[in-house]
Amino acid sequence: MKHTDNIRVDIGLLKNYVDKKALLALQPEIDRVIKSIRNKTCAGNDFLGWLDLPFAGDSAELRNLDKVANEIRANADHLVCIGIGGSYLGARAAIDFLSSPFDKLNRKNKIIYLGHQLSTDYVYDLLRMIKNKKVYINVISKSGTTTEPGVVFRIVLDYLKNKVDAKTLAERIIATTDAKKGALHDMAVAEKYRMFVIPDNVGGRFSVLTPVGLLPIAAAGFDTHALLEGAKSMAQLCRDNDNVLDNPALTYAAARYLLYNKNKEIEILSAFDPGVQYVGEWWKQLYGESEGKEGKGIFPASTIFTTDLHSMGQYIQEGERNLFETFVTVKKMKRKVTIPELAGNKDGMNYLAGMDLAQVNHQAYRGTALAHFAGDVPNMTITLPKKDEYYLGQLFFMFEYAVAVSGLLLGINPFNQPGVEAYKQNMFALLGKPGYEDLKKQLTGK
Amino acid sequence: MKHTDNIRVDIGLLKNYVDKKALLALQPEIDRVIKSIRNKTCAGNDFLGWLDLPFAGDSAELRNLDKVANEIRANADHLVCIGIGGSYLGARAAIDFLSSPFDKLNRKNKIIYLGHQLSTDYVYDLLRMIKNKKVYINVISKSGTTTEPGVVFRIVLDYLKNKVDAKTLAERIIATTDAKKGALHDMAVAEKYRMFVIPDNVGGRFSVLTPVGLLPIAAAGFDTHALLEGAKSMAQLCRDNDNVLDNPALTYAAARYLLYNKNKEIEILSAFDPGVQYVGEWWKQLYGESEGKEGKGIFPASTIFTTDLHSMGQYIQEGERNLFETFVTVKKMKRKVTIPELAGNKDGMNYLAGMDLAQVNHQAYRGTALAHFAGDVPNMTITLPKKDEYYLGQLFFMFEYAVAVSGLLLGINPFNQPGVEAYKQNMFALLGKPGYEDLKKQLTGK
Repeated sequence: MKHTDNIRVDIGLLKNYVDKKALLALQPEIDRVIKSIRNKTCAGNDFLGWLDLPFAGDSAELRNLDKVANEIRANADHLVCIGIGGSYLGARAAIDFLSSPFDKLNRKNKIIYLGHQLSTDYVYDLLRMIKNKKVYINVISKSGTTTEPGVVFRIVLDYLKNKVDAKTLAERIIATTDAKKGALHDMAVAEKYRMFVIPDNVGGRFSVLTPVGLLPIAAAGFDTHALLEGAKSMAQLCRDNDNVLDNPALTYAAARYLLYNKNKEIEILSAFDPGVQYVGEWWKQLYGESEGKEGKGIFPASTIFTTDLHSMGQYIQEGERNLFETFVTVKKMKRKVTIPELAGNKDGMNYLAGMDLAQVNHQAYRGTALAHFAGDVPNMTITLPKKDEYYLGQLFFMFEYAVAVSGLLLGINPFNQPGVEAYKQNMFALLGKPGYEDLKKQLTGK
Repeated sequence: MKHTDNIRVDIGLLKNYVDKKALLALQPEIDRVIKSIRNKTCAGNDFLGWLDLPFAGDSAELRNLDKVANEIRANADHLVCIGIGGSYLGARAAIDFLSSPFDKLNRKNKIIYLGHQLSTDYVYDLLRMIKNKKVYINVISKSGTTTEPGVVFRIVLDYLKNKVDAKTLAERIIATTDAKKGALHDMAVAEKYRMFVIPDNVGGRFSVLTPVGLLPIAAAGFDTHALLEGAKSMAQLCRDNDNVLDNPALTYAAARYLLYNKNKEIEILSAFDPGVQYVGEWWKQLYGESEGKEGKGIFPASTIFTTDLHSMGQYIQEGERNLFETFVTVKKMKRKVTIPELAGNKDGMNYLAGMDLAQVNHQAYRGTALAHFAGDVPNMTITLPKKDEYYLGQLFFMFEYAVAVSGLLLGINPFNQPGVEAYKQNMFALLGKPGYEDLKKQLTGK
């Protein structure tokens, strides 16, 4: 299929706060920041590998990935993906976006997520569910020592060891991990698991276009080549075009930076389709973890409309005026649903009869954008021409490039996450991990 | 089963911001507000019916509800619940909290939600999925003219009319609506649907303990009597005890009011079990819609940990310091999962061997609470003794009572939602609804 269009960003309803003139005034700052990315002198310059991922082309590793994904699709009842944070959200965002919740093919349900939290009820029921099923496991961790995926991988291995012989079990485990070192790498080598590599220069939240994201997405039956093609088209645009008005990633980055400087402290990513929910979760990690440091950063929140217009809508319309909103809309949905006549018109909705439901949804979006603007919530709109892999790839890369630029404009390192360690250290101490005796004493007094 | 314990609220990690002395200093204000609720002189006093719902006792309507729920459980492959906002979130919150995601009984999956948004892909796939299934429909709307449920109810009726004869179809539709008037009421009477009543004096977001919530919860196989019993125990506590230190609803209401006055503008409801996710969504409607008005109100957000410690965790630990956090934890989960030894201890986690996974999760919670506190995010903890209907009922009522008090402390009417109309008016105009010609011209220039 030909894709000639691009994602667009419309900033018309930012007026009163941000306009083209204000964006253009920021161009020199943007140029400086882009230069520091290109010549790899920016903060966090060891983690710029994501810039080149879409250009990887037809590598041996990607061909192998397709092969393994096809094997999983052909043989497995379920693929259990064990990972947390960036080792979970990218795949889920793509799979949920591309699947439909009640898809007969049930592709989405083939993939099960695990090791992304520590709920006993969740783990117990998952084990019970896979009891008589043929499962493959994709364990995803750079180090293999992250508590959540590590401990749950142990539990699953132990559970399956009496149900599948050791050799077969090892054949059904795929480790996505470091190329050379680490606990998971070493286990994979020793047990002869198949392996895919997490590159050293790509941070977790930028890893959706590495095997971290690509293997589960391919195993769910989606076209990772189109995903990469779309990402490549956006990456090429970001290589070719530094104009803040013409490059959607730069428009978005600059607009939100200017809004933050005008005390808009919360950004709500709002979509009109439940399939976008986990794109929102992925985006929250990407932006929250990249920018939320040194006492700075926009608080990222997400909503699914029109559902949440009947929950968060009141607050957005009339609460504290420290918000702005970014709509993510899809121009062409996969399906059509025509609204029928109702004899007698008891509900008064015959004026909608004959319309596609998507038209109603689209006017709900337009009505909301105008209402929130009138309520002093400036908003912009990112439009995907279609709900498919290609434009999702564009969106992923656009958001990644934009967060690098907006993070650097903010004066922070967008590629580290020093604050994520704090709870882990405390947890280790409270659990009695050897070496944490002093911290334990400090926290508990004993 | 006996329930002798209560939900508790621990405010120890609010220190530096809120302590017992500060709470006690607010007691006179709280007394004034409670008095205005009791003598029904407060703002929004037409909508205080939720206060009495837990005391309804063994009514004919509840007995009938049990009968219908049992019929649905016995006969239906799926119950399609058509509703939005308060006509959706309460039931989903309870059903998700009480179910397990991979429950063999698949009770959760028996209930399907519809009419809570306008996505064509969602509706199309749902229709395809129910094609050869036996479905009951619970259409929930006070007026019957809300666009989302109304238009989707039309679509479903039209879809099923060629698959089921008219009489059978009507027997499988249950309308939860106004007792006397409105489009849905009139349709239900004309078509002989069975009906349950939404009381006039209970707003949507306070309706979980009316048939709006109770019918789907009962149809999913959960014990609505225990839910009401739990709510009753908390309602009784709120009748008997006005002491801000002894009544968990008052402690919570007062603490968040004081935090807001200290410029904590965002509250994050954080839980450590994915089953709590929709309790968070329900809570966001309850608090966002009750308090977000007149340019005021705490912005409500929710997270599921430890998942979101690997996405929002960085921001919470080190971003803007305008946050506080409310943990919702469950002391006793339904299941146990023991962590096994790993021969060779390659992942270094043998220090956890023999522990129940819930212990690790509990220390993750404690470690997080301490880390966020150290990062200048004051936090409190609501503890449910057990994951069951009774304590969920306590939680529902506690949150309802608390939002009434905190909203009135804030000086707003916690029971209206004037801002929800704005997008609807625009949408009607843009869709060409008769009577909205002037607004359409104003919005579009034509």
